[in-house]
Amino acid sequence: MKHITSRDNAQYKEIAKLATNSQARRKAGRSLLDGVHLCETWLELRGHPLQAIVAEGALQHAEVGPLVRRLEAEHAHILCLPDQLYHGISQVEHGVGLMFLIDTPEKPVPAALSVNAVLLDNVQDPGNVGSILRSAAAAGVKEVYCAPGTAFCWSPKVLRAAMGAHFVLDIYENVDLAALQAGAGIATLATSGYAAEQLYQLDLKRPVAWIFGHEGQGVSDALLSGASHRVLVPHLGKVESLNVAACAAVCFFEQVRQNLG
Amino acid sequence: MKHITSRDNAQYKEIAKLATNSQARRKAGRSLLDGVHLCETWLELRGHPLQAIVAEGALQHAEVGPLVRRLEAEHAHILCLPDQLYHGISQVEHGVGLMFLIDTPEKPVPAALSVNAVLLDNVQDPGNVGSILRSAAAAGVKEVYCAPGTAFCWSPKVLRAAMGAHFVLDIYENVDLAALQAGAGIATLATSGYAAEQLYQLDLKRPVAWIFGHEGQGVSDALLSGASHRVLVPHLGKVESLNVAACAAVCFFEQVRQNLG
Repeated sequence: MKHITSRDNAQYKEIAKLATNSQARRKAGRSLLDGVHLCETWLELRGHPLQAIVAEGALQHAEVGPLVRRLEAEHAHILCLPDQLYHGISQVEHGVGLMFLIDTPEKPVPAALSVNAVLLDNVQDPGNVGSILRSAAAAGVKEVYCAPGTAFCWSPKVLRAAMGAHFVLDIYENVDLAALQAGAGIATLATSGYAAEQLYQLDLKRPVAWIFGHEGQGVSDALLSGASHRVLVPHLGKVESLNVAACAAVCFFEQVRQNLG
Repeated sequence: MKHITSRDNAQYKEIAKLATNSQARRKAGRSLLDGVHLCETWLELRGHPLQAIVAEGALQHAEVGPLVRRLEAEHAHILCLPDQLYHGISQVEHGVGLMFLIDTPEKPVPAALSVNAVLLDNVQDPGNVGSILRSAAAAGVKEVYCAPGTAFCWSPKVLRAAMGAHFVLDIYENVDLAALQAGAGIATLATSGYAAEQLYQLDLKRPVAWIFGHEGQGVSDALLSGASHRVLVPHLGKVESLNVAACAAVCFFEQVRQNLG
């Protein structure tokens, strides 16, 4: 276990930069996972981090302590910081004092859509993006493609809301969704409050690519008109629309229902 | 149109207190609706507010201007504030300069559950509560009952996330959910990751009361064991659970689907 005690340490400054600056994370191709749940899920699904970063005070914590001792026994890289230095980099309020530094998983974009996927066109809110990733993973959707305007998936807020869903999904960012849609080998389904075709009338026993859009404006006209189907989630109430993450959950689980039945 | 220009004005101080203090809103039985969408929806569904509060600079705004002129023509109470005073009370970042002061709708709690309802047992996050209200309203659920630990429904964050759903729902707060459940005239359905009964096997063509719980701990044991059914949303993926608002949307819209079919 390595100890750093000075704010001026180069490695500490590097981690602090990654923690507070999403541009730096993108550029370095590295991310920070903050909190026991994310770290445990990473360990289970992906193995060791580049480095586990732990606050001194957390070494006695009921969950952090055993996890760090296990990592030590397995000769993983561990960096221990005085609590004050640790809290200078943690982005989580009331965090528990454990973070993993990882290489952000990255794969080349597949040549064409061929398995269950979701395309996020300018979805702004990190909480919505995180909730959509979490629902997608639970529903067996495999791939996530994000247009440049969509919230950065490896930001602390998206990571927290997705509760580890990132680690079972293939996530592609800064993707030209129109080109992807044009070359799709499967049906692309764009939700819209003005569509004529109802969700429950679609055949979802085959792989599909769902498209969800901006919280206010919805899916862009280009993607709507290029979609195989424009899909309405029928409403019984007076209120005009669903939250985009709620809408995505309804769509994903209608597909689960059809595939179970 | 009345003008206030001093922070020391008693009426201004009263509104500022309501804006920043949810205890004050509860005690006064009054709420503030911030933003054009909420105000327009209130006007359409519930009529005039006690008072419309507008920032001087917003009188020229493309949506606010016509709305205020209409309210003036209808002799509604309007309070105009210098921008600086207005922004001292608005809880919305980049707000547009229009708020309604209203009496928080309140009705006596019905003797027994008899129509589609949702019971919120200690749901903490205002965004989740707002999203659940929005989905409930869109799916034709009529009543919302909140246990004391659930986020305050008339807080600015819940109001914003629910996008006007509050105004088509009957919302009851600080309710003893166990007593309500014990006297229910309809089936009560509590979601749980450990339940044996699948959502898609339930008969939802009758009115039901859904129960959702805390983001981490789920529905309390007492409510789970008192429920007519403990319900599992079946997953296909590796990830353990859904966000509570996503889970609620899936449940509500499975009921919509069954009632359309």
